Amino acid sequence: MSSLDHTYSPRLNERFASRAKYFAPSPIRAVFELEMNPDVISLAGGNPELSHLPWDELTRITNDVVANDGLSAFQYGTTVGQPELVAEIQKIMALEGIDTDPENIIVTAGSQMSLDLVAKLFLNPGDTVLAAAPSYSGALNVFAGMEAHVDQLEGDEEGITIAAIEAAVERADEAQSDIKLLYVVPNFANPSGVVMSKQRRKEVAALCRAHRIVIIEDNPYGLIDFREDAPGVEAPPALRTIDPDNVIYLGSVSKTFSPGIRIGWADAPAEVHASLVPAAEASTLCSSPLSQSIAAAYLREVDWQSVVAANVTMYKRRAEALDAALREFLPAGCTWRTPEGGFFLWIDLPENINASSDLLDEAMAEGVLYIPGTAFFLDGRGRNALRLAYSQVDELRLREGARRLGAILTRAIEGTEHGGTE
Amino acid sequence: MSSLDHTYSPRLNERFASRAKYFAPSPIRAVFELEMNPDVISLAGGNPELSHLPWDELTRITNDVVANDGLSAFQYGTTVGQPELVAEIQKIMALEGIDTDPENIIVTAGSQMSLDLVAKLFLNPGDTVLAAAPSYSGALNVFAGMEAHVDQLEGDEEGITIAAIEAAVERADEAQSDIKLLYVVPNFANPSGVVMSKQRRKEVAALCRAHRIVIIEDNPYGLIDFREDAPGVEAPPALRTIDPDNVIYLGSVSKTFSPGIRIGWADAPAEVHASLVPAAEASTLCSSPLSQSIAAAYLREVDWQSVVAANVTMYKRRAEALDAALREFLPAGCTWRTPEGGFFLWIDLPENINASSDLLDEAMAEGVLYIPGTAFFLDGRGRNALRLAYSQVDELRLREGARRLGAILTRAIEGTEHGGTE
Repeated sequence: MSSLDHTYSPRLNERFASRAKYFAPSPIRAVFELEMNPDVISLAGGNPELSHLPWDELTRITNDVVANDGLSAFQYGTTVGQPELVAEIQKIMALEGIDTDPENIIVTAGSQMSLDLVAKLFLNPGDTVLAAAPSYSGALNVFAGMEAHVDQLEGDEEGITIAAIEAAVERADEAQSDIKLLYVVPNFANPSGVVMSKQRRKEVAALCRAHRIVIIEDNPYGLIDFREDAPGVEAPPALRTIDPDNVIYLGSVSKTFSPGIRIGWADAPAEVHASLVPAAEASTLCSSPLSQSIAAAYLREVDWQSVVAANVTMYKRRAEALDAALREFLPAGCTWRTPEGGFFLWIDLPENINASSDLLDEAMAEGVLYIPGTAFFLDGRGRNALRLAYSQVDELRLREGARRLGAILTRAIEGTEHGGTE
Repeated sequence: MSSLDHTYSPRLNERFASRAKYFAPSPIRAVFELEMNPDVISLAGGNPELSHLPWDELTRITNDVVANDGLSAFQYGTTVGQPELVAEIQKIMALEGIDTDPENIIVTAGSQMSLDLVAKLFLNPGDTVLAAAPSYSGALNVFAGMEAHVDQLEGDEEGITIAAIEAAVERADEAQSDIKLLYVVPNFANPSGVVMSKQRRKEVAALCRAHRIVIIEDNPYGLIDFREDAPGVEAPPALRTIDPDNVIYLGSVSKTFSPGIRIGWADAPAEVHASLVPAAEASTLCSSPLSQSIAAAYLREVDWQSVVAANVTMYKRRAEALDAALREFLPAGCTWRTPEGGFFLWIDLPENINASSDLLDEAMAEGVLYIPGTAFFLDGRGRNALRLAYSQVDELRLREGARRLGAILTRAIEGTEHGGTE
């Protein structure tokens, strides 16, 4: 018993749980590995632009936190989060028209962690989650990791359709699967850019309540709104205000301040909140008090709404520049929606073009990166689509990126027209 | 369809997954709520003492990170972690005698998150995890949350016994449960303080390999070692060095630097590491680059080992003060081991004393806090035991805490001796 049997390797992956098959390395890892190359124009990752943050004030704030509050900022904190930060989160949510109770908020390491906790709390293997076609891949991976079936539903200009949800309910009935959750990014969705209309929100909320489907409203982009000057445009109400008893709201400062501090939150009905807290404790004990103190001070002491407004103006110009360049360089048969907010533009390509194989290799070789549409589906759809992010690329490089992409797509489409293969 | 049926409340907890029953509020929440009261002497939470950190240097480091590296520190980072920090982690592990490959390390939001990821990766519902009796409650909660059965095994002065593991293998065979993991804190365990001997480590490693049980070696306290001056005492080798193919090592800077920055790591065999990365991505996307940059600079630029050495001297004096005060004030029938390292002291009480009910209420009323032994079991054991933490309490208050506890225990034991109830 006292010496090891080294005659075989234990092959630990044979001991994995069944859910582990969903924790596979990303198929588009190669894209992200190229992002740091300065010769490459990356329209792949959706990073916020941080260069316009008030760095002098941020340095002062961080200095104050460490020098004056270090003993608590560097110590363990409560799992639920700091009251000072929760008070600021309440104000952010008020900007989105949501009147919150601080008792219902839990701070997490980004809204990604809130999503993971909600999935853990609700999903048994074989349960169904409804989501848009296409959807944020980080959410799909969470649901798949809980061995849920994700039914991705087609939408129109107003978001997921009622008919699509009703059809999904029938499919789930037949498959004897319990639809637990509907996941929706109602404002400037990643990756489609779609905003769910007010009427659609009301209908979706009513239908979900009737079928006991809990709604996850994920809203990282709500304040990145290009339409503010447009007459007659009024932001639709948050689902959380339409049916507070049946909606879990996820928020984040990652797009409006900093993703690197990893601060997000969930605002959930009381009985959900009561279980999210011990789930969070088992996951990370607490969110970083240092990050929380910095975020609370930033939101309290800096005119951060002006910073966001300036950034929104910049993102809007970038979106317009990309939109114009795509019109100039993309061949016929490529269609997209002009962004009204958020970070992304979704391009549908002709049916016979596959953006996830040769085309992606060519793009990487030519120095332009995008995310193939298949990354936003779990079921193989999205082959003839791709996502571009304009958030962190200046206008000149956006134009050059569009030019490179246009050249590749033109060759690909001409190739198939002349009988070539994909 | 367009208006909500508000005639019933959706009662979302009825829609929870089966694992959600393990995400219940902590039964000893009342203890933690009292910790902030200055009249109360808390021997409950195991916080590190931070007052001796080099605050001027920390302020300078944080300032440098924000002012010079802000654009990356406040941005998204890679899921696996910053190479600069991983290089420092390698050096920490070398101090524990472990020769690591940086490719096998992933940085997480504390080692708690690594534990959560490993549990997700390995545990199907009904699988068994072996752990010590008693064990760190945060680990027990993670395993329970994955609906595993935790078999808590008795140990002796050298740690979990081979006989206990063999008996557990038989129990699992009979119950047709697959023992996937053995969880062990080999150095100055929380809460028992036990150090697993070198011989026992070899035997446990061999037995686990033979039964295909993967070992989780959780080592937050290895450097908090009071024995360094003792002649002839040599630290036993890490399990990770005894069987690198079958051991996942969890590390943390929470006890040696700061828990508030939430930086821990897993050092795992390659095929486990390959799946931990996407699991971590689904959980939090990445660990905070701000925290990682601060930790890397602190470990690189500060003589942190001298800071730890000074703190270890302080913790040792506190442990000795508590040990002496307990000898002075505790009634006969209470037994404990004099700490050789770590933060904790575990007290076994006479059989008929229950530390989790009236005694705890009395202690709270008298202004001394402890964690009842039941918190370190999932099966109701530990009633006649309690854990004291001496890490963040000065010597005078430790003595006063022991005096208060001694008075309560004396009354309780005399009460039962004279025929009173618990």
